[in-house]
Amino acid sequence: MGRTSDARERLLDAALDLIWSSSYGSVSVDDICSQAGVKKGSFYHFFPSKADLALAAYEAHWEQKRPLLDAIFSPQVPPMERLSRWCQSVRESQQVLFEKFGHVCGCPYANVGAELATQDDRIRCKSEELLNRGLRYLESAIADAQREGSIHVADVPAAARAVGTCLMGLVFRSKVQNDVGVLRELEPTVLQLLGAAVPA
Amino acid sequence: MGRTSDARERLLDAALDLIWSSSYGSVSVDDICSQAGVKKGSFYHFFPSKADLALAAYEAHWEQKRPLLDAIFSPQVPPMERLSRWCQSVRESQQVLFEKFGHVCGCPYANVGAELATQDDRIRCKSEELLNRGLRYLESAIADAQREGSIHVADVPAAARAVGTCLMGLVFRSKVQNDVGVLRELEPTVLQLLGAAVPA
Repeated sequence: MGRTSDARERLLDAALDLIWSSSYGSVSVDDICSQAGVKKGSFYHFFPSKADLALAAYEAHWEQKRPLLDAIFSPQVPPMERLSRWCQSVRESQQVLFEKFGHVCGCPYANVGAELATQDDRIRCKSEELLNRGLRYLESAIADAQREGSIHVADVPAAARAVGTCLMGLVFRSKVQNDVGVLRELEPTVLQLLGAAVPA
Repeated sequence: MGRTSDARERLLDAALDLIWSSSYGSVSVDDICSQAGVKKGSFYHFFPSKADLALAAYEAHWEQKRPLLDAIFSPQVPPMERLSRWCQSVRESQQVLFEKFGHVCGCPYANVGAELATQDDRIRCKSEELLNRGLRYLESAIADAQREGSIHVADVPAAARAVGTCLMGLVFRSKVQNDVGVLRELEPTVLQLLGAAVPA
């Protein structure tokens, strides 16, 4: 109950928000404690370091996000529609962040991977792992689309990687241009990569 | 002559190397001065701030890189071969960085854009501008390939953006996986995006 018992969760939320809307390097443990309303001593009770908090915050974010992704990529949904809903969901999430923070904030896992891959191998591995979890959804949808004859790709895992790569590139470009509109290119680019007909 | 007269160049080189191989946020003005062998007072003689140095370092990097890109994208080279050589050049550059720093370091413009887009609008704009300069090469090659009938795309600038986006995504993934081999996917993905035949 109350402020003490949910201190860990408040630290996780504050870390995710602060790092996502700025960068890992620009956010201090003091900043995170201040935003979470948690004393620094308590911080170190929960987490040995800022990196440990970040790792836990990304895992918590994944767990929060997973029911939405499970619904989008449900085998009950026709596979090409899963991909279309996913493209829409990416646009909507970035729009929400843009309205909250005044900036396109990009993907939290990709951001921290891009920033820290050469410096912190635990964070690099976590970023890779989380992005690979996303690929499993894409692989399953692409394999189902292939089986029903909607697309024909030579190699399903390679096609999923290409789609995931294209997403990362576009979300990144959207962030650098600070323009959510860039993400309208996601669905046609995905369809082009899969050799599917692109609606006019 | 000597150490004083090339202090500005040494600061530019040190900033590029340090930021590229780690991140903007993790590198201090002291680190840069120390690596460059330049006193901090001299730093502020040349640059009002770390951000100003970074902006100048990226511009200097572009000027250094430009003759190679001009040669790769020369109108004397058949357009599909330009794209192929460019894919190869991206792999080779990342391999050189990997051998120098022990890590896949990614694209310097994309890295700093991803890290700072929400925090520093001058750096965000510079990253966008430099990435757009790269797009001009791609647009020209794709337009020439279209004119000679090697490919047929509906919209040349959109195709160039898709190829550039795919590059950014792949270079980023290569960095997060710390695996230069990921970049072998670049050429087949580019060909797929352009609807060209992918060699077996």
